[in-house]
Amino acid sequence: MQTAEARILDRDNPIDWLHSLVPADMAAVDRLVHERIGSAVPLIPDLARHLVDSGGKRLRPLLTIAAARLNGYRGTAHAKLAAAVEFIHTATLLHDDVVDVSALRRGKIAANVVWGNKSSVLVGDYLFSRAFQLMVEAGDVGVLDVLANASAVIAEGEVLQLRSVNNLATTREEYLRIIAAKTAALFAAAAEAGAMIGNAPREFTSAMRAFGHHLGIAFQLIDDALDYSGRQVQMGKSVGDDFREAKVTHPVIVAHERASEAAKEFWHRAIEDGVQHDGDLKRAIAIIDETGALDETRALAHHHARMAIAALAAVPPHEIRQALISVAEFCVSRGY
Amino acid sequence: MQTAEARILDRDNPIDWLHSLVPADMAAVDRLVHERIGSAVPLIPDLARHLVDSGGKRLRPLLTIAAARLNGYRGTAHAKLAAAVEFIHTATLLHDDVVDVSALRRGKIAANVVWGNKSSVLVGDYLFSRAFQLMVEAGDVGVLDVLANASAVIAEGEVLQLRSVNNLATTREEYLRIIAAKTAALFAAAAEAGAMIGNAPREFTSAMRAFGHHLGIAFQLIDDALDYSGRQVQMGKSVGDDFREAKVTHPVIVAHERASEAAKEFWHRAIEDGVQHDGDLKRAIAIIDETGALDETRALAHHHARMAIAALAAVPPHEIRQALISVAEFCVSRGY
Repeated sequence: MQTAEARILDRDNPIDWLHSLVPADMAAVDRLVHERIGSAVPLIPDLARHLVDSGGKRLRPLLTIAAARLNGYRGTAHAKLAAAVEFIHTATLLHDDVVDVSALRRGKIAANVVWGNKSSVLVGDYLFSRAFQLMVEAGDVGVLDVLANASAVIAEGEVLQLRSVNNLATTREEYLRIIAAKTAALFAAAAEAGAMIGNAPREFTSAMRAFGHHLGIAFQLIDDALDYSGRQVQMGKSVGDDFREAKVTHPVIVAHERASEAAKEFWHRAIEDGVQHDGDLKRAIAIIDETGALDETRALAHHHARMAIAALAAVPPHEIRQALISVAEFCVSRGY
Repeated sequence: MQTAEARILDRDNPIDWLHSLVPADMAAVDRLVHERIGSAVPLIPDLARHLVDSGGKRLRPLLTIAAARLNGYRGTAHAKLAAAVEFIHTATLLHDDVVDVSALRRGKIAANVVWGNKSSVLVGDYLFSRAFQLMVEAGDVGVLDVLANASAVIAEGEVLQLRSVNNLATTREEYLRIIAAKTAALFAAAAEAGAMIGNAPREFTSAMRAFGHHLGIAFQLIDDALDYSGRQVQMGKSVGDDFREAKVTHPVIVAHERASEAAKEFWHRAIEDGVQHDGDLKRAIAIIDETGALDETRALAHHHARMAIAALAAVPPHEIRQALISVAEFCVSRGY
């Protein structure tokens, strides 16, 4: 444990610390990811690489690897599962980016619009299928079950979220249900799958699943908060995507609930009617800040990070366990 | 066999005949399909039911059931695989319907365009996941492998097809590669999976796979031909979808190859440039007819139907085998 504490101090980012504990495994995951996005159809690796090499921290596959190693797993199937988890995540991102235009009619398609939505959807489908091939290769039917269930739950969560767009009647409970499905389900399944592949005891597997679940919730709440963070604006980072898309996230629910009459009208126009003008994002950020909605969102994220850490009480001491605790702490304190 | 022959005469449609040979199995598939599109999120079954209950003949799951029963399978897992096959097909249809609009920029989303592309994509993802859950339940890793591979190949085929849109340089070979992937792969996997679930001998399994593959090619070629069928217009059926979407299908490849200079210019404007006027579809149908492109497409379909039937030589005599032969014959003679 002493070494672990020392290394925390050496590194700004606990996710990097966790990576450094399983470097060969994560290199294997990276090789698999690049190998399996290959296709005789060049658009597929071109498009997939765009996301896969975009500098993400690979947090989800890292959970799979960490859980497996923490349980003393010595095989190689965990890398396949981790790559599958990364593919499910990437496919979800691709499908998330599909532009919605039911108002448009099908019909003549000009050459300049051929590459776009369709490619994202189909390359996403390809990666989903590649994920399932990897899971099948890993050969554990119980794990397949966990990850297939997670895929279904993610899709359900994304559909639920569609319903919350433009909808200020979305409650906190509904919102938590959405993010439990669209984000936390994959974190939970990733960690659980890593434990299961090495036939971990039931208590260990449940602990890893709970850790992943709460980490996912905390992670998403912070993401939502950062999208309205004035500090982000100062840092020159992009904010306001959720606002522009009229998504009703936790900060909006709280701010709307506590808003003055004038501010309520603002939310109705900008979110429910989807009518937005220049300066509206700045106003939204101000209201969210004044009403304490950002603080409340962050506090809820911290609560879930603590729950994640508490779940690890059932897991034996190990440097990986220590790093996972730091990851949970970092995910809710991060400013980006 | 006598009974079989008598029943052919009693029924206009050999697919119905095949259904009538496995009614309890297909009822089980139907129950599973309706049970598994269920979700606490009402949009999912609403949207999925729209396709699932649209009066399709369920030809793909029927191949799974037929292959299993033909091999004397007496269990119930084949119904799960057949439902999974139907879900993969339905998901593909949903994703196919996504409108492509890369020219549109993300940004403000008005309430009236919230339901559309995104719902189709996400409900498709849900059905894909449900398909994998069903396959996992069926519990045969070999079958999982076959169907996961088919899913990846289908997605590859769809991406390949994107590249052929607006592209008159698409060759016959490239086109056959596209339809082998986007259509025939699922027919082949459906039939193979049915054989595998009952541990059929290798020769039987290969025969069923070959049957499905050739049937799928034949089926798609006829679909392509019907999209330019003057007779269809007379029957008041919809034609010209491929033309309007500037898809380069087999009839177009042949007609363009054989076209006069004036007709070549027409194809370039309508397909490569995607500039279409009133009356263009009529002209396209006339050229395709005059050049013999429709006849050649039908002839190729008949060739593949014969190959499908020839593959069944390795399968023992049985009323289901007889019905499969009739299905292959029907698929290339159908006028709708």
